[in-house]
Amino acid sequence: MFSLRALGLVAALAVVAISQTVSAQAIVEKRTFEIANHTTRNGTALAGVKVGWQSMGTLNADRSNAILVPHFFSANSHFAGRYAATDAAPGYWDMLIGPGKAIDTDRFYVFSVDSLVNLNTGDGRTVTTGPASIDPKTGRPYGNTFPVVSIRDFVEVQKAVVDSLGIRRLHAVVGASMGALQALEWAVSYPDMVARAVPVIGTGAMDDFTRAWLNLWAAPILTDPNWKDGNYHGGPAPERGLTEALKFITLHARAAPWANTLGANKAAQGQDPAKALTQKFQIEAILDGAGAARGRISDAAHLVYLVRANQLFLSEYDSMETAYARATARFLILPAASDILFPPAMSKALADLLQRQGRTVEYAEIPGTGGHVDGITAPVLQVADRIKAFLER
Amino acid sequence: MFSLRALGLVAALAVVAISQTVSAQAIVEKRTFEIANHTTRNGTALAGVKVGWQSMGTLNADRSNAILVPHFFSANSHFAGRYAATDAAPGYWDMLIGPGKAIDTDRFYVFSVDSLVNLNTGDGRTVTTGPASIDPKTGRPYGNTFPVVSIRDFVEVQKAVVDSLGIRRLHAVVGASMGALQALEWAVSYPDMVARAVPVIGTGAMDDFTRAWLNLWAAPILTDPNWKDGNYHGGPAPERGLTEALKFITLHARAAPWANTLGANKAAQGQDPAKALTQKFQIEAILDGAGAARGRISDAAHLVYLVRANQLFLSEYDSMETAYARATARFLILPAASDILFPPAMSKALADLLQRQGRTVEYAEIPGTGGHVDGITAPVLQVADRIKAFLER
Repeated sequence: MFSLRALGLVAALAVVAISQTVSAQAIVEKRTFEIANHTTRNGTALAGVKVGWQSMGTLNADRSNAILVPHFFSANSHFAGRYAATDAAPGYWDMLIGPGKAIDTDRFYVFSVDSLVNLNTGDGRTVTTGPASIDPKTGRPYGNTFPVVSIRDFVEVQKAVVDSLGIRRLHAVVGASMGALQALEWAVSYPDMVARAVPVIGTGAMDDFTRAWLNLWAAPILTDPNWKDGNYHGGPAPERGLTEALKFITLHARAAPWANTLGANKAAQGQDPAKALTQKFQIEAILDGAGAARGRISDAAHLVYLVRANQLFLSEYDSMETAYARATARFLILPAASDILFPPAMSKALADLLQRQGRTVEYAEIPGTGGHVDGITAPVLQVADRIKAFLER
Repeated sequence: MFSLRALGLVAALAVVAISQTVSAQAIVEKRTFEIANHTTRNGTALAGVKVGWQSMGTLNADRSNAILVPHFFSANSHFAGRYAATDAAPGYWDMLIGPGKAIDTDRFYVFSVDSLVNLNTGDGRTVTTGPASIDPKTGRPYGNTFPVVSIRDFVEVQKAVVDSLGIRRLHAVVGASMGALQALEWAVSYPDMVARAVPVIGTGAMDDFTRAWLNLWAAPILTDPNWKDGNYHGGPAPERGLTEALKFITLHARAAPWANTLGANKAAQGQDPAKALTQKFQIEAILDGAGAARGRISDAAHLVYLVRANQLFLSEYDSMETAYARATARFLILPAASDILFPPAMSKALADLLQRQGRTVEYAEIPGTGGHVDGITAPVLQVADRIKAFLER
């Protein structure tokens, strides 16, 4: 079998686990935040919305040292630290966030919130509300009666947490990938509450090319016979489609050297792809294993809803210009050089727009050949000093 | 050199009289070539293999002016001209091939052969043999009893046509995308028979990153409830999965400006993607329509077999070095600058290798922002003069 940590979406975790000393670990606690009555942006009333959240550091007396870290597509609020000293790996950005690190938890109160429709329904450490959750009105899973939500909805839930903490203004919102989209949606939605935004491996706009790719991510789930229009909960899940979708996302977040190293231009052990369609190349078998492993802790409908949430990034504004004209934050924009999902040109377009609009904006590319994940793996350390300096200015 | 036996060709029969005349209006004729007994590279005996083919121009007395044009993934042998004056459009490379054009049919005899497992089983103008064909042994469709075939198998079928025409050496093999792979496989398989190879929007090797993408192309078909392990012929076809696969291929062959222009950052007419998962963005509706339209003339199993054939490009050789050390052709390598499927770096790696091996090699990138299809659309005209000059040297 394949080790999820060695191969899948979370290879970053293994790298971090190896490169850091086991001592001096930050132990963090998963908490649950509940909103009794919540109305989504499309006007649907939801009762008893629950999301998990995590914090590190101490909120200061005037509550001015808070940094929000929204998470990426396949992650949750576990941005750093360990739940227990025995955890195999810490949160995904542990290399960046902690005592004395680029985002210094000796100075800043850093927190994150599990998104609505979070992918990781089965990991035992994610608290979320989505189609797989029980609708208190019916006592059964929402399924496709759960409303479409957007990146803006994620921001609204985070806003409820921020309000509950008495925070009036965030020192910064820093996020990778979908976390970057949330950082930007925050800066546009609540300009007075966001002093700094650090979108890492993000994009300033959801273009139709990316929307179409996201549509294709979900396609294998929608063609799975167990999909049943999203109302499969309680019965067999569209596992095969979910596996294929997760393979897709894994590949899209990488680049050629990753696949070519893993695949080694070989057939899977004991197989010959020239003999039968069912016999595979090694890279295919590896991706099958990684997708299936990840699928065991994920929910297919949540993936489909997450796709739509991302497609709806900044969709409440007429144009990118209109949206960003609202923002007053200072920006540090950090794409990964070899990213094929959100190529640097998308971040550069945002930097150029913000500059035209008179904003303070810094831009740097994360060097590397690993693709999108270079923003959450070791290569991101190359911009750690820039992040640290930006947060102190 | 390979013996006839090694080629797996026991008998070859052209069932239609060969005529090298072509009208001044570039009206072309679809013909059928039949091989009574054909053994695939993996050793499977097939009876009554039929493929369509097309030619333009006149084969000269010493049969030295022949140019083979293998086709791309979703095409057939219709490289130029019209079957009837009333045809809405000519063959895909009509801008490059014809009287007085870059590939001048006043000078050259240009021909092409429909591939095995050709995608276009339902277009009324493709003749192919694959899982959707009737197995003469059983009287029923082959389904998944059809053997895996490779790019090399396509070359072997073409070789039978070449032999039947009495051609000992091809002036050139010129192809786009999967056609480029066939041009290269020809140059490596039959070095004495290929004087020039012109791979357009191709790659010198099938790397594992691309193999993995190809795997994902097929995924929606494999998860469709009608797939039935490829044995659906005679029953309902996996239409939904085929549509999704064709959407994927369409998008992968393009680039951002194409999708962003078509999508216009809008919802599909009368729909609101923020309201329900079933409501779409315009780009999604356009891709759905394109995939479904294309799906009506395509076969899902043929697509899956084509994916494997491409994954097996040059797979009979230990390495790229070993393969190309065999070739003696002169090469003109023409990637498209904005190609994300076979990025120019893949062609550049081939050019560099051939140069190290002492071959005569020219390299030029097709400028443009359209992606992979720039090799078969108007942007390719920017390298027409280079192709013309190369063929005349």
